Amino acid sequence: MPRNHGAKVERQQLLSRYLAGNPFLTDEELAALLGVSVQTIRLDRGDLHIPERRERLEQVARGVYGRLRSLDRTELVGELVELEVNRYGVSILTITGEMTLYRSRVARGHHLFAQANSLAVALCDAPVALTGTTKISFRRPVFCGEKVVARAYVRRKKGNKYMVRVTSTVHGETVLEGKFLIFAIAEEVWRQ
Amino acid sequence: MPRNHGAKVERQQLLSRYLAGNPFLTDEELAALLGVSVQTIRLDRGDLHIPERRERLEQVARGVYGRLRSLDRTELVGELVELEVNRYGVSILTITGEMTLYRSRVARGHHLFAQANSLAVALCDAPVALTGTTKISFRRPVFCGEKVVARAYVRRKKGNKYMVRVTSTVHGETVLEGKFLIFAIAEEVWRQ
Repeated sequence: MPRNHGAKVERQQLLSRYLAGNPFLTDEELAALLGVSVQTIRLDRGDLHIPERRERLEQVARGVYGRLRSLDRTELVGELVELEVNRYGVSILTITGEMTLYRSRVARGHHLFAQANSLAVALCDAPVALTGTTKISFRRPVFCGEKVVARAYVRRKKGNKYMVRVTSTVHGETVLEGKFLIFAIAEEVWRQ
Repeated sequence: MPRNHGAKVERQQLLSRYLAGNPFLTDEELAALLGVSVQTIRLDRGDLHIPERRERLEQVARGVYGRLRSLDRTELVGELVELEVNRYGVSILTITGEMTLYRSRVARGHHLFAQANSLAVALCDAPVALTGTTKISFRRPVFCGEKVVARAYVRRKKGNKYMVRVTSTVHGETVLEGKFLIFAIAEEVWRQ
Protein backbone atom coordinates (compact mmCIF):
# COMPACT_ATOMS: atom_id res chain seq x y z
CA MET A 1 0.00 0.00 0.00
CA PRO A 2 2.53 2.63 -1.05
CA ARG A 3 -0.09 5.39 -1.58
CA ASN A 4 -1.71 4.82 1.82
CA HIS A 5 1.66 4.58 3.45
CA GLY A 6 2.74 7.95 2.01
CA ALA A 7 -0.46 9.60 3.28
CA LYS A 8 0.09 8.13 6.71
CA VAL A 9 3.69 9.35 6.95
CA GLU A 10 2.63 12.81 5.88
CA ARG A 11 -0.28 12.86 8.35
CA GLN A 12 1.94 11.71 11.20
CA GLN A 13 4.47 14.43 10.40
CA LEU A 14 1.68 17.00 10.47
CA LEU A 15 0.35 15.55 13.74
CA SER A 16 3.81 15.89 15.35
CA ARG A 17 4.12 19.44 14.10
CA TYR A 18 0.66 20.43 15.40
CA LEU A 19 1.41 19.01 18.84
CA ALA A 20 4.86 20.61 19.00
CA GLY A 21 3.13 23.96 18.39
CA ASN A 22 0.28 23.30 20.80
CA PRO A 23 0.48 20.32 23.18
CA PHE A 24 -2.99 21.22 24.49
CA LEU A 25 -4.81 19.99 21.34
CA THR A 26 -7.28 17.17 22.03
CA ASP A 27 -7.54 14.04 19.91
CA GLU A 28 -10.91 15.34 18.69
CA GLU A 29 -9.36 18.64 17.59
CA LEU A 30 -6.51 16.83 15.87
CA ALA A 31 -8.99 14.54 14.09
CA ALA A 32 -10.89 17.58 12.82
CA LEU A 33 -7.67 19.31 11.75
CA LEU A 34 -6.39 16.29 9.84
CA GLY A 35 -9.75 15.10 8.52
CA VAL A 36 -9.49 11.61 10.00
CA SER A 37 -11.20 9.71 12.83
CA VAL A 38 -10.27 10.05 16.49
CA GLN A 39 -9.32 6.38 16.39
CA THR A 40 -6.77 7.07 13.64
CA ILE A 41 -5.26 9.87 15.74
CA ARG A 42 -4.89 7.49 18.68
CA LEU A 43 -3.17 4.88 16.51
CA ASP A 44 -0.89 7.57 15.07
CA ARG A 45 0.04 8.77 18.55
CA GLY A 46 0.81 5.17 19.46
CA ASP A 47 3.11 4.83 16.43
CA LEU A 48 4.84 8.11 17.30
CA HIS A 49 5.08 7.39 21.05
CA ILE A 50 3.19 10.60 21.82
CA PRO A 51 1.43 10.26 25.20
CA GLU A 52 -2.21 11.23 25.74
CA ARG A 53 -3.19 14.81 26.36
CA ARG A 54 -3.28 14.66 30.16
CA GLU A 55 0.24 13.35 30.31
CA ARG A 56 1.42 15.95 27.79
CA LEU A 57 -0.07 18.68 30.00
CA GLU A 58 1.72 17.24 32.99
CA GLN A 59 5.02 17.27 31.11
CA VAL A 60 4.51 20.91 30.16
CA ALA A 61 3.52 21.79 33.70
CA ARG A 62 6.49 20.01 35.23
CA GLY A 63 8.83 21.84 32.90
CA VAL A 64 7.24 25.27 33.41
CA TYR A 65 6.72 25.02 37.16
CA GLY A 66 10.28 23.74 37.54
CA ARG A 67 11.46 27.21 36.47
CA LEU A 68 9.71 28.97 39.32
CA ARG A 69 12.15 30.53 41.78
CA SER A 70 10.38 33.27 43.73
CA LEU A 71 7.20 31.31 44.47
CA ASP A 72 6.16 27.81 45.39
CA ARG A 73 4.11 26.19 42.65
CA THR A 74 0.96 26.20 44.75
CA GLU A 75 1.42 29.94 45.31
CA LEU A 76 0.94 30.91 41.72
CA VAL A 77 -2.67 31.92 41.17
CA GLY A 78 -3.87 30.35 37.92
CA GLU A 79 -2.25 27.69 35.78
CA LEU A 80 1.25 28.49 34.62
CA VAL A 81 1.56 27.88 30.88
CA GLU A 82 4.82 29.60 29.97
CA LEU A 83 7.64 30.98 32.03
CA GLU A 84 10.96 32.42 31.14
CA VAL A 85 12.38 33.94 34.30
CA ASN A 86 13.60 37.55 33.83
CA ARG A 87 11.60 37.79 30.61
CA TYR A 88 7.96 36.74 30.35
CA GLY A 89 5.26 34.37 31.51
CA VAL A 90 1.70 33.31 30.75
CA SER A 91 -0.95 31.91 33.07
CA ILE A 92 -4.61 30.99 32.74
CA LEU A 93 -7.23 31.43 35.45
CA THR A 94 -10.70 29.97 34.99
CA ILE A 95 -13.27 32.01 36.91
CA THR A 96 -15.40 29.80 39.15
CA GLY A 97 -18.59 30.71 41.01
CA GLU A 98 -16.79 31.30 44.33
CA MET A 99 -14.61 33.94 42.69
CA THR A 100 -17.60 36.08 41.73
CA LEU A 101 -19.71 38.57 43.62
CA TYR A 102 -23.07 37.23 44.65
CA ARG A 103 -25.16 40.02 43.21
CA SER A 104 -23.49 40.84 39.91
CA ARG A 105 -21.80 37.48 39.13
CA VAL A 106 -18.68 39.49 38.26
CA ALA A 107 -15.24 38.13 39.20
CA ARG A 108 -13.91 39.91 42.27
CA GLY A 109 -11.04 42.26 41.53
CA HIS A 110 -8.64 40.60 43.93
CA HIS A 111 -8.67 37.31 42.02
CA LEU A 112 -7.62 39.04 38.80
CA PHE A 113 -5.11 41.01 40.84
CA ALA A 114 -3.76 37.82 42.44
CA GLN A 115 -3.27 36.16 39.06
CA ALA A 116 -1.45 39.18 37.62
CA ASN A 117 0.58 39.87 40.76
CA SER A 118 1.74 36.30 41.30
CA LEU A 119 2.73 35.99 37.64
CA ALA A 120 4.71 39.24 37.90
CA VAL A 121 6.47 37.92 41.00
CA ALA A 122 7.17 34.60 39.23
CA LEU A 123 9.29 36.45 36.65
CA CYS A 124 11.82 37.44 39.29
CA ASP A 125 15.02 35.50 39.53
CA ALA A 126 15.30 35.46 43.33
CA PRO A 127 14.13 33.23 46.17
CA VAL A 128 12.00 36.05 47.57
CA ALA A 129 10.30 38.85 45.63
CA LEU A 130 7.87 41.44 46.99
CA THR A 131 5.53 43.80 45.21
CA GLY A 132 6.36 47.44 45.88
CA THR A 133 3.85 49.43 43.87
CA THR A 134 1.23 48.62 41.32
CA LYS A 135 -1.17 50.39 39.01
CA ILE A 136 -4.10 48.39 37.72
CA SER A 137 -6.86 49.15 35.31
CA PHE A 138 -9.86 46.82 35.19
CA ARG A 139 -11.15 47.22 31.65
CA ARG A 140 -14.32 45.17 31.65
CA PRO A 141 -16.09 42.84 34.09
CA VAL A 142 -15.15 39.15 33.89
CA PHE A 143 -17.88 36.57 34.42
CA CYS A 144 -18.14 33.05 35.81
CA GLY A 145 -16.74 30.41 33.47
CA GLU A 146 -14.48 32.80 31.54
CA LYS A 147 -10.81 31.89 31.09
CA VAL A 148 -8.48 34.77 31.84
CA VAL A 149 -5.12 34.60 30.06
CA ALA A 150 -2.51 36.79 31.78
CA ARG A 151 0.69 37.69 29.93
CA ALA A 152 3.51 39.33 31.85
CA TYR A 153 6.69 40.91 30.49
CA VAL A 154 9.69 42.31 32.31
CA ARG A 155 9.91 45.83 30.85
CA ARG A 156 12.95 46.91 32.77
CA LYS A 157 15.27 45.43 35.35
CA LYS A 158 17.57 47.64 37.33
CA GLY A 159 19.53 46.04 40.15
CA ASN A 160 16.96 44.17 42.21
CA LYS A 161 13.99 46.13 40.78
CA TYR A 162 11.75 44.64 38.15
CA MET A 163 9.20 46.69 36.20
CA VAL A 164 6.65 44.16 34.98
CA ARG A 165 3.72 44.79 32.69
CA VAL A 166 0.76 42.42 32.75
CA THR A 167 -2.13 42.25 30.30
CA SER A 168 -5.00 39.87 31.00
CA THR A 169 -7.43 38.98 28.25
CA VAL A 170 -10.59 36.95 27.74
CA HIS A 171 -11.06 35.80 24.15
CA GLY A 172 -8.47 38.36 23.08
CA GLU A 173 -10.30 41.22 24.79
CA THR A 174 -8.28 43.06 27.44
CA VAL A 175 -9.85 42.81 30.91
CA LEU A 176 -6.93 44.00 33.04
CA GLU A 177 -3.83 46.06 32.46
CA GLY A 178 -1.27 46.37 35.20
CA LYS A 179 2.20 47.63 35.99
CA PHE A 180 4.08 46.15 38.89
CA LEU A 181 7.30 47.27 40.52
CA ILE A 182 8.76 44.19 42.21
CA PHE A 183 11.74 43.98 44.52
CA ALA A 184 13.79 40.81 44.30
CA ILE A 185 15.50 39.94 47.55
CA ALA A 186 18.52 37.67 47.83
CA GLU A 187 18.26 34.82 50.31
CA GLU A 188 21.20 36.14 52.35
CA VAL A 189 19.53 39.52 52.80
CA TRP A 190 16.24 37.92 53.70
CA ARG A 191 17.66 35.60 56.36
CA GLN A 192 19.32 38.42 58.28
CA MET B 1 -21.23 51.77 103.47
CA PRO B 2 -21.50 55.27 101.96
CA ARG B 3 -17.76 55.51 101.08
CA ASN B 4 -17.74 52.16 99.30
CA HIS B 5 -20.97 52.97 97.58
CA GLY B 6 -19.60 56.24 96.21
CA ALA B 7 -16.48 54.47 94.86
CA LYS B 8 -18.68 51.88 93.20
CA VAL B 9 -20.91 54.44 91.49
CA GLU B 10 -17.85 56.31 90.22
CA ARG B 11 -16.23 53.09 88.98
CA GLN B 12 -19.38 52.01 87.20
CA GLN B 13 -19.66 55.39 85.50
CA LEU B 14 -16.06 55.06 84.34
CA LEU B 15 -16.73 51.50 83.17
CA SER B 16 -19.70 52.66 81.06
CA ARG B 17 -17.64 55.45 79.60
CA TYR B 18 -14.72 53.16 78.70
CA LEU B 19 -17.05 50.71 76.98
CA ALA B 20 -18.92 53.44 75.11
CA GLY B 21 -15.55 54.57 73.71
CA ASN B 22 -14.32 51.05 72.96
CA PRO B 23 -16.79 48.14 73.11
CA PHE B 24 -13.91 45.75 72.27
CA LEU B 25 -12.29 46.04 75.74
CA THR B 26 -12.09 42.70 77.58
CA ASP B 27 -13.02 42.26 81.24
CA GLU B 28 -9.31 41.74 81.95
CA GLU B 29 -8.40 45.03 80.28
CA LEU B 30 -11.19 46.83 82.16
CA ALA B 31 -10.02 45.31 85.45
CA ALA B 32 -6.49 46.58 84.79
CA LEU B 33 -7.78 50.02 83.77
CA LEU B 34 -9.92 50.38 86.89
CA GLY B 35 -7.56 48.64 89.31
CA VAL B 36 -10.11 46.04 90.45
CA SER B 37 -10.58 42.30 89.96
CA VAL B 38 -12.13 40.72 86.88
CA GLN B 39 -14.87 39.41 89.15
CA THR B 40 -15.74 42.99 90.20
CA ILE B 41 -15.96 44.01 86.53
CA ARG B 42 -18.37 41.13 85.87
CA LEU B 43 -20.57 42.15 88.80
CA ASP B 44 -20.49 45.78 87.65
CA ARG B 45 -21.52 44.78 84.11
CA GLY B 46 -24.39 42.80 85.67
CA ASP B 47 -25.55 45.85 87.62
CA LEU B 48 -25.35 48.02 84.50
CA HIS B 49 -26.98 45.42 82.17
CA ILE B 50 -23.91 45.52 79.91
CA PRO B 51 -23.63 42.20 78.01
CA GLU B 52 -20.39 40.26 77.72
CA ARG B 53 -17.78 41.17 75.12
CA ARG B 54 -18.83 38.64 72.47
CA GLU B 55 -22.40 39.90 72.51
CA ARG B 56 -21.19 43.53 72.39
CA LEU B 57 -19.12 42.70 69.32
CA GLU B 58 -22.14 41.09 67.72
CA GLN B 59 -24.23 44.18 68.36
CA VAL B 60 -21.57 46.38 66.77
CA ALA B 61 -21.24 43.99 63.83
CA ARG B 62 -24.98 43.77 63.25
CA GLY B 63 -25.22 47.56 63.18
CA VAL B 64 -22.20 48.07 60.92
CA TYR B 65 -22.86 45.22 58.49
CA GLY B 66 -26.48 46.31 58.21
CA ARG B 67 -25.21 49.41 56.41
CA LEU B 68 -23.55 47.47 53.60
CA ARG B 69 -25.20 48.02 50.23
CA SER B 70 -22.73 47.16 47.46
CA LEU B 71 -21.50 43.89 48.97
CA ASP B 72 -22.85 40.92 50.85
CA ARG B 73 -21.46 40.75 54.36
CA THR B 74 -19.47 37.60 53.59
CA GLU B 75 -17.88 39.39 50.64
CA LEU B 76 -16.09 41.97 52.71
CA VAL B 77 -12.51 40.82 53.30
CA GLY B 78 -11.65 41.48 56.94
CA GLU B 79 -13.91 42.42 59.84
CA LEU B 80 -15.96 45.55 59.31
CA VAL B 81 -15.62 47.84 62.31
CA GLU B 82 -17.03 51.15 61.07
CA LEU B 83 -18.99 52.08 58.01
CA GLU B 84 -20.60 55.26 56.90
CA VAL B 85 -21.66 54.77 53.29
CA ASN B 86 -20.50 57.59 50.98
CA ARG B 87 -17.97 58.70 53.61
CA TYR B 88 -15.63 56.30 55.36
CA GLY B 89 -15.09 52.83 56.74
CA VAL B 90 -12.67 50.80 58.83
CA SER B 91 -11.92 47.07 58.72
CA ILE B 92 -9.46 44.76 60.43
CA LEU B 93 -7.78 41.75 58.82
CA THR B 94 -5.73 39.36 60.95
CA ILE B 95 -3.03 37.70 58.86
CA THR B 96 -3.11 33.93 59.23
CA GLY B 97 -0.55 31.38 58.06
CA GLU B 98 -2.46 30.54 54.86
CA MET B 99 -2.30 34.17 53.79
CA THR B 100 1.50 34.23 53.79
CA LEU B 101 4.10 33.09 51.32
CA TYR B 102 5.75 29.84 52.28
CA ARG B 103 9.32 31.04 52.00
CA SER B 104 9.26 34.55 53.41
CA ARG B 105 6.23 34.28 55.76
CA VAL B 106 5.10 37.63 54.33
CA ALA B 107 1.39 38.23 53.71
CA ARG B 108 0.60 37.88 50.02
CA GLY B 109 -0.19 41.17 48.33
CA HIS B 110 -3.59 40.11 47.11
CA HIS B 111 -4.95 39.66 50.64
CA LEU B 112 -4.04 43.23 51.55
CA PHE B 113 -5.42 44.31 48.20
CA ALA B 114 -8.66 42.39 48.81
CA GLN B 115 -9.16 44.03 52.19
CA ALA B 116 -8.57 47.53 50.82
CA ASN B 117 -10.55 46.98 47.62
CA SER B 118 -13.60 45.45 49.28
CA LEU B 119 -13.67 48.23 51.87
CA ALA B 120 -13.48 50.84 49.10
CA VAL B 121 -16.38 49.12 47.31
CA ALA B 122 -18.35 48.98 50.58
CA LEU B 123 -18.37 52.80 50.73
CA CYS B 124 -20.46 52.99 47.56
CA ASP B 125 -24.15 53.64 47.88
CA ALA B 126 -25.31 51.30 45.10
CA PRO B 127 -26.32 47.65 44.81
CA VAL B 128 -23.39 46.97 42.48
CA ALA B 129 -20.01 48.72 42.45
CA LEU B 130 -16.97 47.78 40.37
CA THR B 131 -13.36 48.84 40.66
CA GLY B 132 -12.14 50.72 37.59
CA THR B 133 -8.54 51.65 38.34
CA THR B 134 -6.30 51.44 41.34
CA LYS B 135 -2.86 52.49 42.41
CA ILE B 136 -1.34 50.68 45.36
CA SER B 137 1.85 51.09 47.27
CA PHE B 138 2.95 48.30 49.60
CA ARG B 139 5.07 50.09 52.19
CA ARG B 140 6.42 47.28 54.28
CA PRO B 141 5.93 43.49 54.50
CA VAL B 142 3.18 42.26 56.83
CA PHE B 143 3.77 39.08 58.79
CA CYS B 144 1.68 36.23 60.14
CA GLY B 145 -0.34 37.21 63.22
CA GLU B 146 -0.32 40.95 62.51
CA LYS B 147 -3.62 42.83 62.52
CA VAL B 148 -4.05 45.12 59.54
CA VAL B 149 -6.37 48.07 60.11
CA ALA B 150 -7.64 49.54 56.83
CA ARG B 151 -9.22 52.99 56.79
CA ALA B 152 -11.01 54.17 53.67
CA TYR B 153 -12.33 57.63 52.83
CA VAL B 154 -14.35 58.85 49.90
CA ARG B 155 -12.21 61.70 48.59
CA ARG B 156 -14.47 62.70 45.75
CA LYS B 157 -17.78 61.55 44.33
CA LYS B 158 -18.83 62.69 40.88
CA GLY B 159 -21.96 61.14 39.46
CA ASN B 160 -21.48 57.40 39.82
CA LYS B 161 -17.69 57.67 40.28
CA TYR B 162 -16.10 57.36 43.68
CA MET B 163 -12.46 58.26 44.34
CA VAL B 164 -11.57 56.34 47.48
CA ARG B 165 -8.34 56.50 49.41
CA VAL B 166 -7.32 53.60 51.65
CA THR B 167 -4.54 53.49 54.21
CA SER B 168 -3.76 50.21 55.97
CA THR B 169 -1.65 50.19 59.10
CA VAL B 170 -0.17 47.73 61.57
CA HIS B 171 0.43 49.24 65.02
CA GLY B 172 0.07 52.69 63.49
CA GLU B 173 2.71 52.02 60.82
CA THR B 174 1.50 52.33 57.23
CA VAL B 175 1.76 49.06 55.30
CA LEU B 176 -0.42 49.90 52.27
CA GLU B 177 -1.60 53.07 50.60
CA GLY B 178 -4.09 52.89 47.81
CA LYS B 179 -6.32 54.96 45.58
CA PHE B 180 -9.36 53.35 44.01
CA LEU B 181 -11.67 54.66 41.33
CA ILE B 182 -14.96 52.81 41.79
CA PHE B 183 -18.00 52.85 39.54
CA ALA B 184 -21.35 52.54 41.27
CA ILE B 185 -23.99 50.94 39.10
CA ALA B 186 -27.72 51.30 39.65
CA GLU B 187 -29.74 48.08 39.80
CA GLU B 188 -31.85 49.10 36.80
CA VAL B 189 -28.75 49.56 34.65
CA TRP B 190 -27.27 46.31 35.83
CA ARG B 191 -30.35 44.21 35.13
CA GLN B 192 -30.61 45.35 31.50
